Amino acid sequence: MKSIHVALLGFGAVGKGTYDVLQKSYDKIYRDLGLDISIKKILVKDKDKPRNIENSESIITTNIDDIINDDDIHIVAELTGDKELGAKFMLRAIKSNKHVVTANKSSLANNLTTLLSAARKNGVSFKYEASVCGAIPIISSISSPLAHNNFVEGYGIVNGTANYILTKMAKDKISYDQALLQAQKLGFAESCPDDDVLGIDSANKLSILIYLMFGEYIRPEHIDTTGITGVSLEDIKAAEIRGKKIKLIASARKSNDIITASVSPSEISDTNPLYKTDYEYNAVLLKDESFDELFFYGKGAGSLPTGNAVLGDIVTIAMSL
Amino acid sequence: MKSIHVALLGFGAVGKGTYDVLQKSYDKIYRDLGLDISIKKILVKDKDKPRNIENSESIITTNIDDIINDDDIHIVAELTGDKELGAKFMLRAIKSNKHVVTANKSSLANNLTTLLSAARKNGVSFKYEASVCGAIPIISSISSPLAHNNFVEGYGIVNGTANYILTKMAKDKISYDQALLQAQKLGFAESCPDDDVLGIDSANKLSILIYLMFGEYIRPEHIDTTGITGVSLEDIKAAEIRGKKIKLIASARKSNDIITASVSPSEISDTNPLYKTDYEYNAVLLKDESFDELFFYGKGAGSLPTGNAVLGDIVTIAMSL
Repeated sequence: MKSIHVALLGFGAVGKGTYDVLQKSYDKIYRDLGLDISIKKILVKDKDKPRNIENSESIITTNIDDIINDDDIHIVAELTGDKELGAKFMLRAIKSNKHVVTANKSSLANNLTTLLSAARKNGVSFKYEASVCGAIPIISSISSPLAHNNFVEGYGIVNGTANYILTKMAKDKISYDQALLQAQKLGFAESCPDDDVLGIDSANKLSILIYLMFGEYIRPEHIDTTGITGVSLEDIKAAEIRGKKIKLIASARKSNDIITASVSPSEISDTNPLYKTDYEYNAVLLKDESFDELFFYGKGAGSLPTGNAVLGDIVTIAMSL
Repeated sequence: MKSIHVALLGFGAVGKGTYDVLQKSYDKIYRDLGLDISIKKILVKDKDKPRNIENSESIITTNIDDIINDDDIHIVAELTGDKELGAKFMLRAIKSNKHVVTANKSSLANNLTTLLSAARKNGVSFKYEASVCGAIPIISSISSPLAHNNFVEGYGIVNGTANYILTKMAKDKISYDQALLQAQKLGFAESCPDDDVLGIDSANKLSILIYLMFGEYIRPEHIDTTGITGVSLEDIKAAEIRGKKIKLIASARKSNDIITASVSPSEISDTNPLYKTDYEYNAVLLKDESFDELFFYGKGAGSLPTGNAVLGDIVTIAMSL
């Protein structure tokens, strides 16, 4: 039996989701994998906010040093969602020889090579399944069983908020503004939805996927990006007449050693597996000469689906220790 | 740079596919992963059959001992497709401290716990991505990023031949016998198609999936199995009127600690992601309380897609050496 101590940085939707999935999965992990995984510390901003956590007195901290300086913490899960702070915390954790897991796509996409080379240099694991497409094991699949593939193309619906809004517009025949409002009411969009609706979040995820598929780092701001704010109900209706749906597609392909990448609203026909990817669901389609076509579909966001991906990375690292 | 020597047991469609995918992927594996993977031996029945292999004189052998006794072979890929011989070869390879990869679902499903415990005892890796759903990384996903999940249900279309026949019947409005004949002509069905059309192959794959999802071994012959030989064009037309397709579904669920499993022709509605899984494609849908629903789709058979999965396992093991 191995005892593995984890620290969570942040206890928003993803941090809470990771905590909850560990509660659900603790027995199976203990029994089948021989691992006793426990959350030793949780970094928060406001210590006094009520949270349903056992032993919260000793676990909750507002000081990152309590985690970085604790040699008994093996894995740090960075779930702050903060681009600048996230990178800073991850680098400190890596340099303290802690294994790092992150769900923070903006921090990751903007500091990808720095973080990966720091992890390599310090001989620690660095995993980020939860940063792209929530519950879908797309990062693990490209990193390991498909590591040898010469990918030709990869594209997908990688932002649940934008997809929810476009689906709502099409199904309920409402305007972009009305759909955004509904998405915000139901918690599928944030009060400031810019990152999602302008395609920035999709570009972050695409940058990460491109690095894994093609081994090249293209910074998110260098990806040609158009969001969904210009998509009207009329556009959607016109597409429907042609038997198509409008989806926000993040796409990258490699041809003659040149990578082209873009994020933009695109028409998808009903023969495409992405056609039925509606609401908060995400999906990715990969192409290669050997396997031809692979398609992955699942919940791209949400507390438990994203927490599930974070815990998957934690368990994979723990199994290797 | 690590040099890894591999032996292939069998050079039929899957062996040839593995060899071909390695040719395509060699440069990427060498450059990006720092691995020099080479095929050192290939076991065949008929040494004189013409094959397009470099240095075939020194590589081709008809004697398994040439492989078992070669301490310079690190990984054995068992691709014979022979239930009895496959198990015998795998056990010998494991006992000679070689890592083993297999695509042989009948051999695996019928000797699962024996093979896994032999591998554990001898401290070698044992991987079998290619045994279920060809190119789809379903085994890797359940084994690693989803290892902690308490699966509720898993079901899918896991046999490409049966799915090809059912799709042909529905699209061309032809009888089972006519569709089988066409599938045989195009190489999607063997001259003796019993394993595929009677559901035996699906039961083998389901047995493997059940072990991974629920940690329990149910022998394939204990799974309630009905094939597609009794499905008539009239059945398919009647389902179509209800907006449904008939698919051969392998299904397992766990409720109150009891596992129920079956293979049988089932009606699938167009809201189900499996509805559009046609011809030789395979797909699997997993359910769990944390990630909710995950769907995987890709080519379930064929030389290159299956060879791709075999090579994925070889590379994953090689990375860990």
